[in-house]
Amino acid sequence: MAAFVAVSASAQVTEDFKPASTNQEGKQYPMVNSQRMVRAQISAPEANSVKLDIGGVKYEMKKDANGVWTGESAPQDEGFHYYQLNIDGASVPDPGSKYYYGASRWGSGIDIPAADEDFYTVKNVPQGSVNEVYYYSSVTQQMRHGYIYLPAEYYANPTKMFPVLYLQHGMGENETGWGAQGKTGIIMDNLIAAGKAVPFIIFMDNGLNARKPGEQPQGFGGFRPQGPRPAGGQRPQGGARPAGGQRPRMSGADFAKMARRMGGAFEEVLIKDIIPMVEKNYRVIADADHRAMAGLSMGGMQTHGITLNNPKTFAYVGIFSGGTIGADELTDVPDFKATNKVLFMSAGGKEKGMAEGEGSVINAAEGLKKIGINAHSYISPETAHEWQTWRRSLYQFAQLLFK
Amino acid sequence: MAAFVAVSASAQVTEDFKPASTNQEGKQYPMVNSQRMVRAQISAPEANSVKLDIGGVKYEMKKDANGVWTGESAPQDEGFHYYQLNIDGASVPDPGSKYYYGASRWGSGIDIPAADEDFYTVKNVPQGSVNEVYYYSSVTQQMRHGYIYLPAEYYANPTKMFPVLYLQHGMGENETGWGAQGKTGIIMDNLIAAGKAVPFIIFMDNGLNARKPGEQPQGFGGFRPQGPRPAGGQRPQGGARPAGGQRPRMSGADFAKMARRMGGAFEEVLIKDIIPMVEKNYRVIADADHRAMAGLSMGGMQTHGITLNNPKTFAYVGIFSGGTIGADELTDVPDFKATNKVLFMSAGGKEKGMAEGEGSVINAAEGLKKIGINAHSYISPETAHEWQTWRRSLYQFAQLLFK
Repeated sequence: MAAFVAVSASAQVTEDFKPASTNQEGKQYPMVNSQRMVRAQISAPEANSVKLDIGGVKYEMKKDANGVWTGESAPQDEGFHYYQLNIDGASVPDPGSKYYYGASRWGSGIDIPAADEDFYTVKNVPQGSVNEVYYYSSVTQQMRHGYIYLPAEYYANPTKMFPVLYLQHGMGENETGWGAQGKTGIIMDNLIAAGKAVPFIIFMDNGLNARKPGEQPQGFGGFRPQGPRPAGGQRPQGGARPAGGQRPRMSGADFAKMARRMGGAFEEVLIKDIIPMVEKNYRVIADADHRAMAGLSMGGMQTHGITLNNPKTFAYVGIFSGGTIGADELTDVPDFKATNKVLFMSAGGKEKGMAEGEGSVINAAEGLKKIGINAHSYISPETAHEWQTWRRSLYQFAQLLFK
Repeated sequence: MAAFVAVSASAQVTEDFKPASTNQEGKQYPMVNSQRMVRAQISAPEANSVKLDIGGVKYEMKKDANGVWTGESAPQDEGFHYYQLNIDGASVPDPGSKYYYGASRWGSGIDIPAADEDFYTVKNVPQGSVNEVYYYSSVTQQMRHGYIYLPAEYYANPTKMFPVLYLQHGMGENETGWGAQGKTGIIMDNLIAAGKAVPFIIFMDNGLNARKPGEQPQGFGGFRPQGPRPAGGQRPQGGARPAGGQRPRMSGADFAKMARRMGGAFEEVLIKDIIPMVEKNYRVIADADHRAMAGLSMGGMQTHGITLNNPKTFAYVGIFSGGTIGADELTDVPDFKATNKVLFMSAGGKEKGMAEGEGSVINAAEGLKKIGINAHSYISPETAHEWQTWRRSLYQFAQLLFK
């Protein structure tokens, strides 16, 4: 299934590898070089075969006399990637990396240095916090788990009320994604300190595990996605995936219909449980003008569906690598147009279907502007359907909110 | 090095295994049965040997016709344990479990159901939150990372001021331990809702990685521990460890001297950076009567040293599986006695050296009471040098604070 790349490409390897920023403290491997190649290493003296599995490709590693296996990948895009090791047929996390939830499992991740990484680097500026929160859901009749970002001023100014962005992850990910891989807290603290964004709260929930009592565990209301592919670039089972981040084509009408059904049980949890809980427990300006929703990939499609299904609820809408809202969809939803203040759509430059041509976010934004929507589009340079696209999308979107 | 236990013990295995509560969502393995045995499973079709490595013992697993390996451990203590799999000589995390930081690595953990698990089970009560915080350290001249627990009332009552507990992890662990393995937020929310503890803030930092600029990365001020062994029960490298949680004997005077040197750079970070930051950024009652310090194992020894070195700073002191403070140590520290309101010492019942006899926490508490200290001791039934001891210790200690 997977392609195998011979390590003989090593004639061209630049030997300036450094430990990845995503490594466990004190761990030397995995490393990244200036060509953005990943070098992994693991001791497995009795193994027959060890591979580095990243970006949908399994790279053979080689054993030295001490039983230590080492191998490199081809150059990767800037930013975050899920990966794993394969030892004699067992796909396992790399003991050298920190672990992230994506591709429907907790597993290894690696951050490839990026030219623009300054915006998601921790700095000595006023610090908000990403907070782990449990809450009771009347819809699922269980305790649920999410994260809330509170800006520094939430603590410093104890009478001020804040707007809220509800921010969703992609397929195969969970409520930890935006905080960990997405670096949401760091991006926001830096933006607010630079005066580029107004301080606002962000709530990040799990958009996949909401089920009403007795409902089968098949995700959001029985819908099985056929649009954007799983976020992040690594499938839980082996097998190559299409490179470059393209998604299957769908007609605009089919896509719109699908998006409206995306909410499912999660839509009910968000509207009936999460928003009331946040507005009760935190100092929040509780009206549509101070409420935003955004998401990446599947979370973008949920945003699409939920904001159209609840057209008076959110004035700000962001869809990152999650398709487009077409002007024709808004014809029968006048309240959406009346309520909306910003509609932002983005994609990675390598996501050709969303970044270029007729189906692009650029084209969709132009169409929306013609009917009076304050539409914005953004293309992340040289990235695919992956977290660097979404970090940059949040950075852009946050600057448009609540102004 | 490690002992091997034949799976032929399976004649006595009770077949009522259920997925562990610490598993990744949707993962069936590892499982636990009513005998508290752990059964692990992994697909590794080409492997020669796969072992389950838990509690210092490596258990051989067996391969079926599909290349899936399965095996069980001996019965484990109630509560949380670090573990890993070994595939052809490679020690790796189990892809079925969630991951925790301990034994100086992110790796697999498993929670064995306990008779008293109710006190650390999430309930529909007013919820505080465990918050991820970055702050600048003037001592290390870098941004540092910790967690702060804010009780529900911190959010609900925005003018109220709160006391603070500074709570430290053990050797080989980090600032995530008390929130994840320790279940601090859940324990506190439940205690406060039941009226058993007053609401207070908890700050949890990394007690091992504080280094002044240019200092070598050897931990807290150059001290290498010889007292309590690494927290948690699994060493990063293979090899059996002593069972039962006993620590090497030291004389009381040696122990006292060592404890006073435990603080190192972390002591400076705590006193000069963390406490001022918490008291500046949060609504805190900033005096000794509303300030506590506690820790487990190495963190308990740090508490011992730091509270004696700063005798007017903390009125409440907790030492969990971290030795004892002797009455003789307080002779030349009159301010400690004058400031202290509660001195709590605990140990696991299987930690014989600390739980029984002359060197026990019980004996130490009796000695301290004779000189007028409000000393308390607690023995966690049937547990060793492990998180169940420390969850229970926090549960007991929290009820004594700020009353």
